[in-house]
Amino acid sequence: MTPITRPTLLLHRPTCEANIRKMAEKAKKQNVQLIPHFKTHQSAQVGEWFRKVGVKAITVTSVKMANYFARNGWQDISIAFPVNVLQADEINELAAQIDLKIFVNSKETASILQEQIKHPIKFYIETDVGDHRSGADPENLETISEILRLTRNSHLHFEGFYTHAGHTYNATSAEEVEQIADLFLKKLRSLRAHFSKEYPNLKIAMGDTPSCSILKNLEGIDSIHPGNFVYYDLVQHGIGSNNIEEIAICLAVPVVAVHLERQEVVIHSGWVHQGKDSITDEKGNTHFGLVVQLTEDKWSAPIPGGKVIKLSQEHGVLQLSKEVIEQVKVGDVLGILPVHACATAFMMGEIHTTAGERLEMMPR
Amino acid sequence: MTPITRPTLLLHRPTCEANIRKMAEKAKKQNVQLIPHFKTHQSAQVGEWFRKVGVKAITVTSVKMANYFARNGWQDISIAFPVNVLQADEINELAAQIDLKIFVNSKETASILQEQIKHPIKFYIETDVGDHRSGADPENLETISEILRLTRNSHLHFEGFYTHAGHTYNATSAEEVEQIADLFLKKLRSLRAHFSKEYPNLKIAMGDTPSCSILKNLEGIDSIHPGNFVYYDLVQHGIGSNNIEEIAICLAVPVVAVHLERQEVVIHSGWVHQGKDSITDEKGNTHFGLVVQLTEDKWSAPIPGGKVIKLSQEHGVLQLSKEVIEQVKVGDVLGILPVHACATAFMMGEIHTTAGERLEMMPR
Repeated sequence: MTPITRPTLLLHRPTCEANIRKMAEKAKKQNVQLIPHFKTHQSAQVGEWFRKVGVKAITVTSVKMANYFARNGWQDISIAFPVNVLQADEINELAAQIDLKIFVNSKETASILQEQIKHPIKFYIETDVGDHRSGADPENLETISEILRLTRNSHLHFEGFYTHAGHTYNATSAEEVEQIADLFLKKLRSLRAHFSKEYPNLKIAMGDTPSCSILKNLEGIDSIHPGNFVYYDLVQHGIGSNNIEEIAICLAVPVVAVHLERQEVVIHSGWVHQGKDSITDEKGNTHFGLVVQLTEDKWSAPIPGGKVIKLSQEHGVLQLSKEVIEQVKVGDVLGILPVHACATAFMMGEIHTTAGERLEMMPR
Repeated sequence: MTPITRPTLLLHRPTCEANIRKMAEKAKKQNVQLIPHFKTHQSAQVGEWFRKVGVKAITVTSVKMANYFARNGWQDISIAFPVNVLQADEINELAAQIDLKIFVNSKETASILQEQIKHPIKFYIETDVGDHRSGADPENLETISEILRLTRNSHLHFEGFYTHAGHTYNATSAEEVEQIADLFLKKLRSLRAHFSKEYPNLKIAMGDTPSCSILKNLEGIDSIHPGNFVYYDLVQHGIGSNNIEEIAICLAVPVVAVHLERQEVVIHSGWVHQGKDSITDEKGNTHFGLVVQLTEDKWSAPIPGGKVIKLSQEHGVLQLSKEVIEQVKVGDVLGILPVHACATAFMMGEIHTTAGERLEMMPR
């Protein structure tokens, strides 16, 4: 491993590629298309690893990210975000070059875009199946029909219904995710039944990593768009999406002070490095990551009792057991398993594989 | 104002320059040196505005940031962070070029650095006056004396004691900040009394924005190192450091959906733009920023009842009153006053003044 002198995001490529393969195999077995969300890694090079399992279409979260991956050779990109009509010019430019898909969730947006879009573009109607973040109500057939009517004679072509069931993130077990999914899959099936006479080829697309990781039966779904599974993290582990060994990234952090008297270690790793996501257990104890030891080619299981208990801009404070802290010295490098991989990767902005390769990410 | 099509960080330069002038005048009146912390703005151009009020020395939070500002002409830089001994080579390189000051908080670090530092460098001993993040115990005179003994015949020269009283951030009123300060100023005075025979020129340095903004009497302090005051934010406003009109930055965000039925608006602004800091009121209601209207040359006071209630990677959800939401349309641009200015500025990575000037920030 390269010598580490500052906070450094490590990626264990075999674990990451195994996560990619596993999801691709699941998709194949279930006869759904894997259209992975690239917002988690935002890396041209990690993106390449998806081509090996046959991925040709991808999902992103902004026009900027669509441009970045288009420059890196991706020709079929869905922007999974309620379209920002102020970016119509940029969208037109990109739609002239690649097969672009956007979200049109409301009559207002449909009405503006049918005038402004000058190149053929496909659109999903995002449906809100219970998360209440964004999307049209799947039971409000009048609104959906009106969006379809408004776009009928324009460059906008209806692709199908997209669902990000973000409320699965509140689940604390695989069973709970399955219960949530039972309900939303029913809604999606009934949408298809209603609109398939007029649109026999409409697609049903599903976004969230917990559902895509956990559900054993994806009947009724045409494509899955998970993102986080490429790295996984402690939140997904808590939901039941992954084993702890399937987490593919780890933040390597220098020890700058050891406070034996309170069993705390100060590390160079703050929210500018990790992000500020935390996990609170049943007893109300909050942590910002679990501590591991770096090994020759990866890292250990979490050290019992080791966790990040405080974060400021560049400081982190670890709590360690008495036995462990006695072994830790100023100048050591420890590892932190991320609470939220999307955040840690975004904050760091570059990745180093444990084999010493530097991977670029989308510039800010 | 430049047309806004995507999340854009706006800076009202007259407000920012007034914040800088006010702190400089306070420092002058109190006969302390202002050595501002540049971690909040991380911008070469905003840094220049400090020269106008006579600032010659600055504070930063990492070796990387010290290098950035050294490249931009700053010759006297304190790195307010427990020194990371793994970066000794980089520190030597920088110490050969500028007047560099670092933190040596422990015997372990002193022992390593007295061997590794090859150029004259000044150091503070950071003292932990109650925040318990980092620093030596100011009542543990044995440790402090040992740090001084270990560094005596090296390139490391003792500058004085630095204190970041981070526990003032838990205060909810100016009075509470003053009570906290009474206690820690006593500790600092007694440190000076003890060590001034041997080090008659030792400095007492103080870091936190609440103390620097609120305290009326800075007797016994030689230099203040606040950072956040350059922009201020809603957290500082809650502590009592600033009026709401003194907040100098505002995130301009496009409206992508309006959900009248639940009085919610979806904006293009997630934690990748704002950061994830939140404020929770006495009733347990949490928000991630307050909503303002953009005006010709700045922005309005917060709209009653308007706040950011949810944040994901690129989505934000606003709650608005019935009267206000009826005026909001897809394609409008609203403003968000930041909960934590350091985080929002860091996330955005570039700033636009309301007069249309683009300001650079330190590259990631």
